[in-house]
Amino acid sequence: MKLPAPVQQFLRQPNVAVIATVRPDGFPMTVVTWYDFDDGRILVNMLASRARLGWMRANPKVSLTIFDEDWYRHVSIYGTVASIHEDTDLIDIDRLALRYTGKPFRNRRAHRFSAWIDPVGWHGWDPSGHLSSPGVEAS
Amino acid sequence: MKLPAPVQQFLRQPNVAVIATVRPDGFPMTVVTWYDFDDGRILVNMLASRARLGWMRANPKVSLTIFDEDWYRHVSIYGTVASIHEDTDLIDIDRLALRYTGKPFRNRRAHRFSAWIDPVGWHGWDPSGHLSSPGVEAS
Repeated sequence: MKLPAPVQQFLRQPNVAVIATVRPDGFPMTVVTWYDFDDGRILVNMLASRARLGWMRANPKVSLTIFDEDWYRHVSIYGTVASIHEDTDLIDIDRLALRYTGKPFRNRRAHRFSAWIDPVGWHGWDPSGHLSSPGVEAS
Repeated sequence: MKLPAPVQQFLRQPNVAVIATVRPDGFPMTVVTWYDFDDGRILVNMLASRARLGWMRANPKVSLTIFDEDWYRHVSIYGTVASIHEDTDLIDIDRLALRYTGKPFRNRRAHRFSAWIDPVGWHGWDPSGHLSSPGVEAS
């Protein structure tokens, strides 16, 4: 699925994001995350020890809500984890750390994994209407 | 489940929240929301026309991530929708609007519903450790 240009532009900024995965017991679980947006896909990265890494492997259905300093302006995307790989040389987490902090990731001995997410659908809303999905009412 | 006192105190502030519901196709869906915390439960409110109202009725498993202006400091809670009721006189949305904006809700003709969520589990992290779950590593 191709996201509209204003949504793509919004995702390219180092915005705040919350990602939801689905636990084996059926509960969704949300957590704050760094992300990047590249060629229509979303990159996230996590410690090898994180429970959500296993949950994503078992169930690749995820969603993210992304917003900037005005949290009334936000985009939500649901999608599928297309691939998971070990971030052996910390290339992906450095990419995210540079994007968000301007510096490489501090812990050079971290054992981390990356996931690429393919968007399946989205929903957006902001007071100006710039990011709003067609037909979405104000809250 | 009783949340620890620092987590309860954090939830009592009018913080930013993202709620996840599970769609009938199994995808989680996240969206920014107002909430309140009262006597161990979480109140949310939405337009009658919102898809997530139906999703909550079909599947009461939800989660929320809550954070303040420092989004590295956050608490995630998963839980069950214990009840859903029509917000006939806009009592609940006024309560939320007052909490977040200091004013009653602007649209007096809105058709809205409320849901009360019972926490089942939680996960917290912040740089100071104040809100962190036991044993949680830095990201």
